[in-house]
Amino acid sequence: MNISKEGIENILQKAQEAFVAIGKFGLKKRVTFMRNVAAEIEALGPELITTAQQESHLPEGRLVGEKGRTIFQWRSYADAVERGDSLDASIDTANTERTPPKPDIRKTNVGLGPVTVFGASNFPFAFSTAGGDTASAIAAGCPVIVKAHPGHPKTSQIMADAISRAVEKSGFPEGTFSHVYCETNEEAQLLVSDPIIKAVGFTGSYRGGMALVEVANKRKEPIPVYAEMGSINPVFLLPGKLKTSAGELAKQYAGSLTLGVGQFCTNPGLLIGTDGEDLDGFIEVLNEEIKKAAPAYMLHTGIAKAYTENRQKLVSQSGVDILAVATVEAEEGQGAATVASVSGIDFLINNALQEEVFGPFALIVKCKNADEVIAVASKLHGQLTATLLATNEDLAESEELVSVIQNICGRIIFNNFPTGVEVCKSMHHGGPFPSSSNSQYTSVGADSIRRFVRPLSFQNWPDEFLPDELKNDNPLNIWRTVDNELTK
Amino acid sequence: MNISKEGIENILQKAQEAFVAIGKFGLKKRVTFMRNVAAEIEALGPELITTAQQESHLPEGRLVGEKGRTIFQWRSYADAVERGDSLDASIDTANTERTPPKPDIRKTNVGLGPVTVFGASNFPFAFSTAGGDTASAIAAGCPVIVKAHPGHPKTSQIMADAISRAVEKSGFPEGTFSHVYCETNEEAQLLVSDPIIKAVGFTGSYRGGMALVEVANKRKEPIPVYAEMGSINPVFLLPGKLKTSAGELAKQYAGSLTLGVGQFCTNPGLLIGTDGEDLDGFIEVLNEEIKKAAPAYMLHTGIAKAYTENRQKLVSQSGVDILAVATVEAEEGQGAATVASVSGIDFLINNALQEEVFGPFALIVKCKNADEVIAVASKLHGQLTATLLATNEDLAESEELVSVIQNICGRIIFNNFPTGVEVCKSMHHGGPFPSSSNSQYTSVGADSIRRFVRPLSFQNWPDEFLPDELKNDNPLNIWRTVDNELTK
Repeated sequence: MNISKEGIENILQKAQEAFVAIGKFGLKKRVTFMRNVAAEIEALGPELITTAQQESHLPEGRLVGEKGRTIFQWRSYADAVERGDSLDASIDTANTERTPPKPDIRKTNVGLGPVTVFGASNFPFAFSTAGGDTASAIAAGCPVIVKAHPGHPKTSQIMADAISRAVEKSGFPEGTFSHVYCETNEEAQLLVSDPIIKAVGFTGSYRGGMALVEVANKRKEPIPVYAEMGSINPVFLLPGKLKTSAGELAKQYAGSLTLGVGQFCTNPGLLIGTDGEDLDGFIEVLNEEIKKAAPAYMLHTGIAKAYTENRQKLVSQSGVDILAVATVEAEEGQGAATVASVSGIDFLINNALQEEVFGPFALIVKCKNADEVIAVASKLHGQLTATLLATNEDLAESEELVSVIQNICGRIIFNNFPTGVEVCKSMHHGGPFPSSSNSQYTSVGADSIRRFVRPLSFQNWPDEFLPDELKNDNPLNIWRTVDNELTK
Repeated sequence: MNISKEGIENILQKAQEAFVAIGKFGLKKRVTFMRNVAAEIEALGPELITTAQQESHLPEGRLVGEKGRTIFQWRSYADAVERGDSLDASIDTANTERTPPKPDIRKTNVGLGPVTVFGASNFPFAFSTAGGDTASAIAAGCPVIVKAHPGHPKTSQIMADAISRAVEKSGFPEGTFSHVYCETNEEAQLLVSDPIIKAVGFTGSYRGGMALVEVANKRKEPIPVYAEMGSINPVFLLPGKLKTSAGELAKQYAGSLTLGVGQFCTNPGLLIGTDGEDLDGFIEVLNEEIKKAAPAYMLHTGIAKAYTENRQKLVSQSGVDILAVATVEAEEGQGAATVASVSGIDFLINNALQEEVFGPFALIVKCKNADEVIAVASKLHGQLTATLLATNEDLAESEELVSVIQNICGRIIFNNFPTGVEVCKSMHHGGPFPSSSNSQYTSVGADSIRRFVRPLSFQNWPDEFLPDELKNDNPLNIWRTVDNELTK
């Protein structure tokens, strides 16, 4: 069902009412609600998978795994709420002897207000309607309005219905979760510009994310827009490692590059190495792997078309040579794995070579020497991840390079590949601009809840009226900082 | 010394170089540097106080106290860095048995990059050149460029010199701290718009803060602008408390209102109560206190002029009556304490009555009944603080009112006054827009360091190359989350 402007205003109003109501519920009820959402998703029959297969061309196994990840997100974020992780509860006790007397001050985190979520096409479960943004905003105490992704509307509806059942079962107000199909950009923009909305979560393209940032910038009240916009995830191939394991690394790299037809924001689309025999050996194996890779259907024809066009645009840049393309010709809607190369010098003078080609495409930058590798690293835009394929000896000799790389990425990986983002507290999925619009927050893992909270201090507040997490006897049994000491 | 555009570019470049260098120093060296800054400020002779007195008209006692607070900020933020509070260090250990294998992921916080600080006129020490924004950005590992406040240029220079001495003594690069006098807005804007700058701290007026937000919105790369823009800090006078302690409360309220000639962002400029005999009794005592208050020199003549003009604008609104003005006439440059009143109905229909009158001015809103008090609270813009003068019985009967108030403020106070902001971990000094441009962070207390950091994850990184805070044997002996459990 598409929605009118009046319909959107009604939904916004209900979200605001729900926000006030949720604020009075306490954390236990919220945790129960989140676990009910997880149970509702878990109980969904095979229709969820078959519908998503039809809408996204993703294989059954991948979707079954993604369903599990989605359930895990709801459960692990509920656990984090139960542990009080995202509250940062702290207490500074009074000192009446001091001049002037020191008051009793206590601090917790509360929800920002209604949140709009724009999901991703490449994770129809884990980063769409019932995905990480929705789960983390609910965990923060915020009602959520999801703009249904046009790439998988039926899948989105199944997930929305599951959440709505949990809302009802848990005694939460209707406005806690809304699911909106927008026909026009104008309608979607209302979900960012309206004063009721206090934050926006987005996963998708640079263009899409920045369009939302722009709408937000026109608001009177600034709000955070958490846009995760992808990156080309550079992989640095250091000489010691290259010498010993070129062939094996090339196979692993090809695997990460072509996984899911390259449709991951952490797809390693850029590889940087020092020119020479060892790199040639790596490339030889890589070329064979790429030629063997069977073209596969991408999420939708628009993405496949964009892949072909963007790849063409990139390989037509000065100094770029195509090294290998999948031998089997791609049908319409499919993406064919492709590897190209360019010299360090040509890379350094052309920003167009840093454009993301969303799909199974890699550009290999052949540098003259280690200094040129550092120069290339210094030129890179902000990235979600950066990977070093290296020996410990390589690392010891690369202090300068590592320092440069740390400053441009959100996650730095040693002899591993960036695809397959682990959902855990220590994961940072985000990074310096333009990989995300706000480098200070992750969109994966329970710390993503922090995107949607703000601190609230209570001064000299009577114990019985404090929220449970700040009461003297710590009824929630959570970790808190008391006079600068962590304690339970 | 004023600075040219080229001079600013040179300073920006040096700040960027310093950022890279500081990133390699480790936390211990940073802590030593911060303690050296504290020692340099502590060692400053009476010239600091006399200069600040001349430039700000603030009394000696207040400035001596503010110097102490400033030193305490540097020391307590250094302690927080030493304890690892702002790192949120966490480790998720590997599980190679799992399919797919779970990698080892570790997360810490790193500095955002060079930060520009625009200080406040009303705290020439604690919120200016060597104030909280500078201390917290340095604590985060960020170089700082301070735009000297034109209201106290000589004071600013003394503080800048103290910091520069500490920079040199501590072996930090020159670009760690820069002090710039700007003659034009264009020069000041460069300190926000340049791509090298990664965050901005500001304390001052709504107009000033939003001008910086606007400059930042025009950047290609979004950056956080932490503008603390003040508020009118509503005080709710509940019936039970009013009945028992009207006279005493009126005296305390007058004291908070006129403290420092009302020149605090937490000055309680709005008082809301239910009309009747008890409120009349409160007002009677308040009027006497206000009449007795001696007019005093404000920070500079511009502020005194603005006070008089804004007060005039507010009291000329429909339905506003002046209740009392200080009896002794104010000289040029002085501010005379003033109290006015308005009905709840008139307040509800006129947003102009929520404009901040920076100085010793209060507007009393006389509501018909408790419902109108809730209506007024619901109408309020975002505030740094809100205060309830109430008995426990009042609180018990005010669930709805408290819920509304919590949603519009950053700190909620019970039978205490908002002026005198305690520097401690549990303090939240910030609040929903328009009291600040980013409600998610405090500008007072060690948690203010978080404004200037971003997370960085390490995946499968060899132990010897990890930053100390993430190494297996925890050499810094800090609290960390390991597999979701807090541990040392």
